[in-house]
Amino acid sequence: MKLNIAVLPGDGIGPEITQQSVKVLKAVADRFDHEFQFDDALVGAAAIDLLENPLPEATLDLCLKSDAVLFGAIGHPKYDNNPDAKVRPEQGLLKLRKELGLFANIRPVRTYEKLLDQSPLKRERIAGADMVIYRELTGGIYFGEKSTAEDGKSAQDLCFYSEEEIDRIAHLAFKAAQQRRNKLTLVDKANVLETSRLWRKTVKTIAREYPDVELDFLFVDNAAMQMILNPKQFDVILTENMFGDILSDEASVIGGSIGLLASASVGTKNAMFEPIHGSYPQATGKGIANPVASVLSAAMLLDHFNLIEEANAVRKAVELSIKLNVCTEDINKDNHYSTEKVGDFLEGLI
Amino acid sequence: MKLNIAVLPGDGIGPEITQQSVKVLKAVADRFDHEFQFDDALVGAAAIDLLENPLPEATLDLCLKSDAVLFGAIGHPKYDNNPDAKVRPEQGLLKLRKELGLFANIRPVRTYEKLLDQSPLKRERIAGADMVIYRELTGGIYFGEKSTAEDGKSAQDLCFYSEEEIDRIAHLAFKAAQQRRNKLTLVDKANVLETSRLWRKTVKTIAREYPDVELDFLFVDNAAMQMILNPKQFDVILTENMFGDILSDEASVIGGSIGLLASASVGTKNAMFEPIHGSYPQATGKGIANPVASVLSAAMLLDHFNLIEEANAVRKAVELSIKLNVCTEDINKDNHYSTEKVGDFLEGLI
Ligand SMILES: CC(C)[C@H](C(=O)O)[C@@H](O)C(=O)O
Ligand SMILES: CC(C)[C@H](C(=O)O)[C@@H](O)C(=O)O
Repeated sequence: MKLNIAVLPGDGIGPEITQQSVKVLKAVADRFDHEFQFDDALVGAAAIDLLENPLPEATLDLCLKSDAVLFGAIGHPKYDNNPDAKVRPEQGLLKLRKELGLFANIRPVRTYEKLLDQSPLKRERIAGADMVIYRELTGGIYFGEKSTAEDGKSAQDLCFYSEEEIDRIAHLAFKAAQQRRNKLTLVDKANVLETSRLWRKTVKTIAREYPDVELDFLFVDNAAMQMILNPKQFDVILTENMFGDILSDEASVIGGSIGLLASASVGTKNAMFEPIHGSYPQATGKGIANPVASVLSAAMLLDHFNLIEEANAVRKAVELSIKLNVCTEDINKDNHYSTEKVGDFLEGLI
Repeated sequence: MKLNIAVLPGDGIGPEITQQSVKVLKAVADRFDHEFQFDDALVGAAAIDLLENPLPEATLDLCLKSDAVLFGAIGHPKYDNNPDAKVRPEQGLLKLRKELGLFANIRPVRTYEKLLDQSPLKRERIAGADMVIYRELTGGIYFGEKSTAEDGKSAQDLCFYSEEEIDRIAHLAFKAAQQRRNKLTLVDKANVLETSRLWRKTVKTIAREYPDVELDFLFVDNAAMQMILNPKQFDVILTENMFGDILSDEASVIGGSIGLLASASVGTKNAMFEPIHGSYPQATGKGIANPVASVLSAAMLLDHFNLIEEANAVRKAVELSIKLNVCTEDINKDNHYSTEKVGDFLEGLI
């Protein structure tokens, strides 16, 4: 298969981890006789520094015409602590999601036997936990109209959802549930928000088309608690943009490190693959960032093009590396390997 | 001291737990020679059933002229699963918070030595955790304009904040930090939301008046993760309405049961005290609900009127009950006591 892959390393640890996935993907191309073409482009703070634009035209063009985007991370503290900054790295990511129409962000969460004791949660609570979060990614309060009053003394953000936006991701989530344990949990705040009531109503209607999937509902506050009390209860979680952002970061504690969590963002035409961790600026350049989240995102990329054997080879490599403790310091305190060494090891296993 | 206390038992387990706190407060009045006058009123689903209004005029009037409100819980599944319901129990609670001007919801989170092993989190992560969450309670997306389109195909909720709304709760939170470990963490999503940037800017300005308090910032997704990874890092958390709702339910896992978490909601004139758990409909009438969250809310009521010795007596009683395992089944699996028995025991200790 021939694939054009746009590589957007971005900020902080983005470049160093993305480099490892590119290595792994190249090894996959070699072994399975594919032709993967990689093209780098600027995004985020890196792009602002050079071009004053977190998503330069050239980057967007490249992404639009590529088969897939491999994304690193975005964000820089110099913007976070400046509420007056007019241009921010995150705008690059948000605009990219919007322009590529990536409405569904898919975030699998699982445990590894070897890492069960790394989690802050007790082993018996998490052993066997295996869920996937379907987070709506191009709507809600992230993209609604936002403004600050002239006098700077008030501000607002609008959370808007249409039936259509809910529909398309809900179908994906129900279908995923059918391939898994046939359970879907909608997380919302329907006792307070009008948009949540629209979600509940729309998803209930769609559920009739999937009679083999059991549907239940949780308020987001309760879900944030249940995620820790009993993560094994979840199979597929479906939720809106902001709640999905919060819950998936929270869920990262189950696996033992946020450095393990991959994601795929899909639309009707394009697809992007990115670790759920951020740019982790404090770690930049130190060789301590865990490349696994990015490498597993690359595996999701392979899945996306139905290269299942290839994706499984990548996942197997990751599993072995964890089993053998060839891991970065987030999950291997005593005798850790560098970002690059872990990447080399994974590459070697393909 | 003479206090008029409005008692709003509400829905689900609300009545059974509130009854225990009233018993305890009566014992306090007896022992410390105070005059507490209790007046019951309807709220929530209970009020809708009788008067088609989740917050009847008479209830609001009573609350307005009382010194304090003791609140049970609100919510009923028959409304949760009906997105078309025009009147909902929660409106009663939200309206009450608004009408009484209860802008700051204060939620302390701590651990009990005896319960450390009850938590899904490992002992070493939580032992000694002790934080208080200041949640803004009368603004944000809870109270912004909300609507559904005529055709029912889209909906929206507005998140609005003014500097003034942020100011008043921020001062309370900084003052609380000064009485504690001098650390305040603002939780927001300033990399995406305009309102969050207003929070960050306003709180930074106010921080200058409290040079002895160390201020830091966390994005809400990261905060949801940090809450589990390392809860001991937190002293005072300050955040907006929705984020506070999510984070405080999540934080309940630290103590081992949401049935232990109390809250005070304060404004300039009025104050209300309620457990953070909800109406827990499945448990209603079974005598299994934990009254401690409500009893500790009553202790916060006593604190509020500077009855510190009295409040400490209540907290001591709770601590002893936990030490002796006189607890409901959420924290005592083998040999549990009923809601009423726990209430009797606490009453007896005053
Ligand atoms: C960087 C930020 C805008 C982003 C988000 O909130 O979506 C990140 O937290 C994520 O989850 O991908
Ligand atoms: C019942 C509901 C409206 C309420 C809220 O979300 O504020 C509850 O969850 C709480 O935290 O007090």
